[in-house]
Amino acid sequence: MTKLIIDFFDEIKYELSVVEKELMSAVRCPDPLLTEAATHLVSAGGKRLRPIFCLLGGKFYNFNLDRLVSLAVALELIHMATLVHDDVVDSSMTRRGIPTIKARWGNKISAHLGDYLLGKSLVLIAQYKDPLIPKVLADTSVKMCEGEIVQIATSFNTNQALRDYFYRINRKTALLISASCKLGAVACGAPEQLHQALHRFGHHIGMAFQITDDILDMTAEQVKLGKPIGGDLRQGIITLPAIYALHNSPQRERLRKIATNRNKSDADVDEAIELITECGGVEYAAGVAKKYITKAKQELAELPDVPVKKTMQTIADFVGIRSF
Amino acid sequence: MTKLIIDFFDEIKYELSVVEKELMSAVRCPDPLLTEAATHLVSAGGKRLRPIFCLLGGKFYNFNLDRLVSLAVALELIHMATLVHDDVVDSSMTRRGIPTIKARWGNKISAHLGDYLLGKSLVLIAQYKDPLIPKVLADTSVKMCEGEIVQIATSFNTNQALRDYFYRINRKTALLISASCKLGAVACGAPEQLHQALHRFGHHIGMAFQITDDILDMTAEQVKLGKPIGGDLRQGIITLPAIYALHNSPQRERLRKIATNRNKSDADVDEAIELITECGGVEYAAGVAKKYITKAKQELAELPDVPVKKTMQTIADFVGIRSF
Repeated sequence: MTKLIIDFFDEIKYELSVVEKELMSAVRCPDPLLTEAATHLVSAGGKRLRPIFCLLGGKFYNFNLDRLVSLAVALELIHMATLVHDDVVDSSMTRRGIPTIKARWGNKISAHLGDYLLGKSLVLIAQYKDPLIPKVLADTSVKMCEGEIVQIATSFNTNQALRDYFYRINRKTALLISASCKLGAVACGAPEQLHQALHRFGHHIGMAFQITDDILDMTAEQVKLGKPIGGDLRQGIITLPAIYALHNSPQRERLRKIATNRNKSDADVDEAIELITECGGVEYAAGVAKKYITKAKQELAELPDVPVKKTMQTIADFVGIRSF
Repeated sequence: MTKLIIDFFDEIKYELSVVEKELMSAVRCPDPLLTEAATHLVSAGGKRLRPIFCLLGGKFYNFNLDRLVSLAVALELIHMATLVHDDVVDSSMTRRGIPTIKARWGNKISAHLGDYLLGKSLVLIAQYKDPLIPKVLADTSVKMCEGEIVQIATSFNTNQALRDYFYRINRKTALLISASCKLGAVACGAPEQLHQALHRFGHHIGMAFQITDDILDMTAEQVKLGKPIGGDLRQGIITLPAIYALHNSPQRERLRKIATNRNKSDADVDEAIELITECGGVEYAAGVAKKYITKAKQELAELPDVPVKKTMQTIADFVGIRSF
């Protein structure tokens, strides 16, 4: 998956390889268990979207790799930390057969490993003199937690409005992507007008990205997704296609019944996805994602004409059509 | 408990009340669940040792409450976050009847609540211009995680040397207390010589504090401790009195057998504590704590003669004799 994405980014191929190396060395420490768990995480790959956006953001001004590497690594570490903490589960919520950090090392290690990654990101961020960088990242991490908690608090709640969903995914995903685009430019000394435009671009892309992710959780092939389909429904996370269907499906009462059931069978999940798709829930969500992509591209149009602008457009398109 | 400690500190009574108010308001947020859980934590009290040391550290130079409050609150939030993440357990490790955040809200909430507290501390720290403050706290949080992970990795391991124990408690406890003393002075603009002396004082006090804590886990009355005696042994955490006994008790093989048993009965725990006490393990640990207190007081002697110095001495003595 990593490889595929990197292919889009010939312009920052070298820079990404430097980030990757630094990421690997950032998580090493005197403790072998911690190093092993963290290295396992880094090696497992990922799209490295946040470092990519950070580097691309920097390309809009006086690009300086030395100034960007630590920030790019820190952004990925923050992202990884949230993934690890998201793996912390309660016994009743354990999903069988998914090899998460938690499954391999347990909840307690996950809690501390996430903190460790976060701590390493703080060490990197502390190098920056511009106060905007720690400030934006601190605010972002608080809001990301708010998003995670709201997601737990509203799980299995089928009476959600669209704005509840947008509030959640903004915090869960869009804010850090938006911060990545913006801070890449900030680290290179870009003026406020430029980094604010990148911030808006990142917001729209981040929203589209999460909506697409939520669609894929219902429509992807299991092999490509790397996890069972319908994971969100199983965990009680009500995403955009489901919210649409809960308001518009002629069989919304049946859907509500399945969605609120904490012990769904595989057949239940399949049925729910069918009901959601039938009434146009997936199509609706794809339309919303498309609108965000259009907005992102409009934002891009206002940005300076640098070579990397085309790459940003390609990402915008890719976010809308990706199938994994 | 909080009240008792505050009585020692008439000199910073007002300042502590300001910190307490700020702490309470720092954890409020738009989300009611998050605010409730965090407020519950703050209201549950605690000794507020880190804010106390931060304020006292500031008293050695140009004391300025406005410059100290956010730092003092941030230090307590970092401490609270580690406690919350320490509450994350694996089902096999769940201890019955102990009302932790985990017991009330579950592992998943604990993971995100801890991150939230940490995030709030970052927002506060981002206000400081002196780069030493974020740097020291970032380094400290990484090392604290290393300590926590080593504690997990070495649990139920009865072949530990003294230096393994000191490595662990330095990271788990002493570093943040030491940072509190030091950064209080840093925030008030103190010169390096002064904050390095406070750093050393904090290190010795922190070590003594954790050793005493580990002794109390074996000797305190359950009511005063607020949790069952022998909790460390139950969780497989081998502390100083146990390490001494595992090397010196004539019945060390029996002790080893109990200590490595993951399903100890209450009678097993009582027997182990008796074996440890009988051979002088508790006395030995108390002697080590006393040595650290002596070192702390020597460090104090070198510090400028400010009124608060006497309070620091009182704390040093108190850490050695406290019974809760």
